[in-house]
Amino acid sequence: MEKLTLIKVGGKIVEEPETLENLLHDFSSIDGYKVLVHGGGRSATKIASALGIESKMVEGRRITDADMLKVVTMVYGGLVNKNIVAGLQALHINALGLTGADMNIMRSDKRPVKEVDYGFVGDVKEVNADLLAALIRQGIVPVLAPLTHDGKGNLLNTNADTIAAEAAKALAKHFEVTLMYCFEKKGVLLDENDDDSVIPEIDRSKFREYVEKGIIQGGMIPKLENAFRAIDAGVKQVVITQASEIHKQTGTYVF
Amino acid sequence: MEKLTLIKVGGKIVEEPETLENLLHDFSSIDGYKVLVHGGGRSATKIASALGIESKMVEGRRITDADMLKVVTMVYGGLVNKNIVAGLQALHINALGLTGADMNIMRSDKRPVKEVDYGFVGDVKEVNADLLAALIRQGIVPVLAPLTHDGKGNLLNTNADTIAAEAAKALAKHFEVTLMYCFEKKGVLLDENDDDSVIPEIDRSKFREYVEKGIIQGGMIPKLENAFRAIDAGVKQVVITQASEIHKQTGTYVF
Repeated sequence: MEKLTLIKVGGKIVEEPETLENLLHDFSSIDGYKVLVHGGGRSATKIASALGIESKMVEGRRITDADMLKVVTMVYGGLVNKNIVAGLQALHINALGLTGADMNIMRSDKRPVKEVDYGFVGDVKEVNADLLAALIRQGIVPVLAPLTHDGKGNLLNTNADTIAAEAAKALAKHFEVTLMYCFEKKGVLLDENDDDSVIPEIDRSKFREYVEKGIIQGGMIPKLENAFRAIDAGVKQVVITQASEIHKQTGTYVF
Repeated sequence: MEKLTLIKVGGKIVEEPETLENLLHDFSSIDGYKVLVHGGGRSATKIASALGIESKMVEGRRITDADMLKVVTMVYGGLVNKNIVAGLQALHINALGLTGADMNIMRSDKRPVKEVDYGFVGDVKEVNADLLAALIRQGIVPVLAPLTHDGKGNLLNTNADTIAAEAAKALAKHFEVTLMYCFEKKGVLLDENDDDSVIPEIDRSKFREYVEKGIIQGGMIPKLENAFRAIDAGVKQVVITQASEIHKQTGTYVF
């Protein structure tokens, strides 16, 4: 199978002109088929605040009421997505910005209200990977915004990590997929105080060992559990790295 | 050649939930290949105002400074475009929202500064009609936002009537194109005080006659001149009508 690299970058990287320029340059130098998934939460919070709309978060997740849905539709689907697309076009990458509604690429259900009412937030139900794969084979580079739709006319705010994982899993039927998650560090660290102590490879048994020893802890545990779930669903490998490292393809390889 | 209908609707229609719902319903009932081009100026003015950004207009054209470019990118490329796309998906129309940057569909040059500095406004230079036509033949319905790009990483605000005309002209190589412009009246009127006095057909000699008699005047003259230019460039016919009439295909036919 042909290779495809799917890279997820957070809002911070894509919201500052300088880091965005570096990212797009590095992304453009990656060989083969590729997909970019982006966040945009900081810009959404900033624009919402300027519009007098309060950002409410529960455990790091945004509560999306009707007004906030408008803001994230503007910021994720418009401002952030289209600036990335225009930037990639300037580097001769034939980018196409997409939300889940576009070509029905990603359909979701509105999250049911349990302890928390997250509002207009979607849990992904269906990915139209055939159409996405056909575009990719035509030389198109999809740029996915963290928005899906419910098929009834409503857009839904959807976590960018989830968009990346679901797209990677669905595309695994068509390509040998490497899923790269960019965060603040160059990878999973052996010593949290030493940024250069990146663990090069983690499999399931090493993961258990590191967790038992307390080397891997906190938010890194669900991140790696998600990585293993993607691998169970057919993704070849997950790389946890920093945006500045994507063109070197270095970081922690999870398989 | 196969037929294609390209419909341009102004901001007013697509910015109110009720008129938008009617429009999308009528649009979905049109047979054959189709494309929708939308405006969004009212929403842009409203959001800009809420953000404390003043809307400056010269002869009905928006001056687009850096802050206003962000607003129109959010509103046209995000809010308006993605709500139309989600609404069409609910009606089982496989819509794909596009700016000119997406797949390099429409490249423009920043308008040179003469008497007026319009700012980040683009004059269309190149339409990638082959790619657009291939998508349309796959059953995709493009929804075009009034934004283009300069190929150097910059988005540019571009008049929606121009986007519609340029897309129609470029697609005329692939399809028999009917270009429908929606405005406030049901067509070009014989008597401006009688909304039912729609002139059914206008060719060049009738146009000259009506202008000489003062029946066609003001803003309708350049509108019709643009229609004849589209026809010169290969568009089969231009229909000037009201959004509520598009599914009936009634209005003033210009050919």
